[in-house]
Amino acid sequence: MSRELGIALDFGGTKLAAGLVDLQTGEVYNQVRERTPVEGGREASLKTVLKMVREGVLARGADGLADRFSIAGIGVSFGGHVNSVQGVVERSMHVAGWESFPLASYLAETFSLPTFIENDANASALGLKYFGPGKDLRQFIYVTVSTGIGAALVMGNDVLWGGRNLAGEIGHMVMQPGGPLCSCGKRGCLEALASGPAIAQTAQRLRQERASTGSSGGNKGIRFERAEDVFQAAEAGDDLARYVIEEAARFLGLGISYAVNLFDPDCVMIGGGVSRGNAEWFETVKAEVLANVLPSVAQDLMVMRVHEDITAALKGAAALILARAECA
Amino acid sequence: MSRELGIALDFGGTKLAAGLVDLQTGEVYNQVRERTPVEGGREASLKTVLKMVREGVLARGADGLADRFSIAGIGVSFGGHVNSVQGVVERSMHVAGWESFPLASYLAETFSLPTFIENDANASALGLKYFGPGKDLRQFIYVTVSTGIGAALVMGNDVLWGGRNLAGEIGHMVMQPGGPLCSCGKRGCLEALASGPAIAQTAQRLRQERASTGSSGGNKGIRFERAEDVFQAAEAGDDLARYVIEEAARFLGLGISYAVNLFDPDCVMIGGGVSRGNAEWFETVKAEVLANVLPSVAQDLMVMRVHEDITAALKGAAALILARAECA
Repeated sequence: MSRELGIALDFGGTKLAAGLVDLQTGEVYNQVRERTPVEGGREASLKTVLKMVREGVLARGADGLADRFSIAGIGVSFGGHVNSVQGVVERSMHVAGWESFPLASYLAETFSLPTFIENDANASALGLKYFGPGKDLRQFIYVTVSTGIGAALVMGNDVLWGGRNLAGEIGHMVMQPGGPLCSCGKRGCLEALASGPAIAQTAQRLRQERASTGSSGGNKGIRFERAEDVFQAAEAGDDLARYVIEEAARFLGLGISYAVNLFDPDCVMIGGGVSRGNAEWFETVKAEVLANVLPSVAQDLMVMRVHEDITAALKGAAALILARAECA
Repeated sequence: MSRELGIALDFGGTKLAAGLVDLQTGEVYNQVRERTPVEGGREASLKTVLKMVREGVLARGADGLADRFSIAGIGVSFGGHVNSVQGVVERSMHVAGWESFPLASYLAETFSLPTFIENDANASALGLKYFGPGKDLRQFIYVTVSTGIGAALVMGNDVLWGGRNLAGEIGHMVMQPGGPLCSCGKRGCLEALASGPAIAQTAQRLRQERASTGSSGGNKGIRFERAEDVFQAAEAGDDLARYVIEEAARFLGLGISYAVNLFDPDCVMIGGGVSRGNAEWFETVKAEVLANVLPSVAQDLMVMRVHEDITAALKGAAALILARAECA
């Protein structure tokens, strides 16, 4: 069997990445990265990526990759809403002009290669399925916790899409009716209670409340702008920061337990920037998941952290080719 | 194409049913029903069902069914935990002796027909898929609300099983940490807040609390033994009963919204004894689902009641043959 490569692309809100991925091992070659030219809209992003592929990914033939391998297709991880079936971007979270853009057919025509696109959470989950700890699992849930909270439900060899490409919207379960306002317009969503920004905002609000009532609030000098600040304060022993992190972790664990009860997965994998926060946060999430799922599920459910490195999105993008190309 | 029949069996906690189902139309012939001989354990139930099939379902040949049709297989709806892949009953909710019994292979050998078994909620959902309003839907959620609360996630032509045959356990999501004790051992599960027995118990408890504190409690003469009593009192204008029903409906609607956000179905179908309660209950459930799912899902999500008649379980059992027989 001749080994095949995939061209992997990652359209993120702050960076664009491209590379060649060995579809058997997941190894990534010829990586190129650029800052996302946000101000230039869709056209600038596309132009940059085409250049990255032509002058970086495909031109670096020095090691003879192109001779020894064939290229099976293009996989794209996109930070936004995507209709994967139609191969159309519905909108980007960060860059203007992407509405209803047929990215898959555009790239397929440009490079004459079968092209598959997926939102970043689903693509990352498929990376874990084809090149990571999900390899031998029949069903697992991947939860990513960063500026938002999303999930992918992996079932067999692919993710579940749902009827509107909106399956896995764990972040918008209303966990605290009447709670803090969420970006979706509702109140008390899991994302508004346990995402990175939610942790920072809650900590900052509580600190201000305590300051105004004159009660003790630990190190009053720090302004909590990012979740990282709260995690640092917690590690330095700040009680308020520790309380906020524990509450966020508890909401997250309870929310994940709902997904487990409904989907009955073999494993829950937790990734994203916030998951790198600290060990205590993860232990609280895990304990809360196990305490709230059916006892017979808790017995053998795996709950693990996945530490996505810089190649994770590209591996996920390449995994799309394995999951979906007829020929793969 | 010659039309095919399935032998359909329904092992319920209070009744056993059997019949022949036309696998094209879902019409049910030669129905036989018996009270479940609970005290006789598994053996008595099995003996009764075999007799029902031989002397009732198959013997009534007067209308010439057996000549005009062929029998494709046996489908079984079972009220309990079932390992559908292995065809093994794990346990009955009501009858002793069923633990680890290989019901599918037992029936397959007895009648020399391919046999498929499934728990009652999943079987009913497949009945809706093959012979009901789910016919043209790619994915839907069926929620059954009676003494327990269960759900089936229908995806394509079958239900999702999960890793332990426990997918769809919507009733054991912890909606109120520290709340009322549930049969599963946890506290505050949806089932302990919104099932039929939960409605009766909550109403009875609140009535007693009001009586002991001397505050007004409507018609104090009625004892709330079943959800039906509470629904009747509510219809007669009893404020406490109306309050309890509304709270239960709200919990149920919120719980269903979680399943919708995770699974992104085309439709939610709500069945079971409690769903026949009254129209206001259903309207509250529906409103709560729509208020709590993502706005873009609420736009076109169908939420409907299904009124299961006496043949629903048999249709569901027969649908298993269509979903799973290689030859069908």
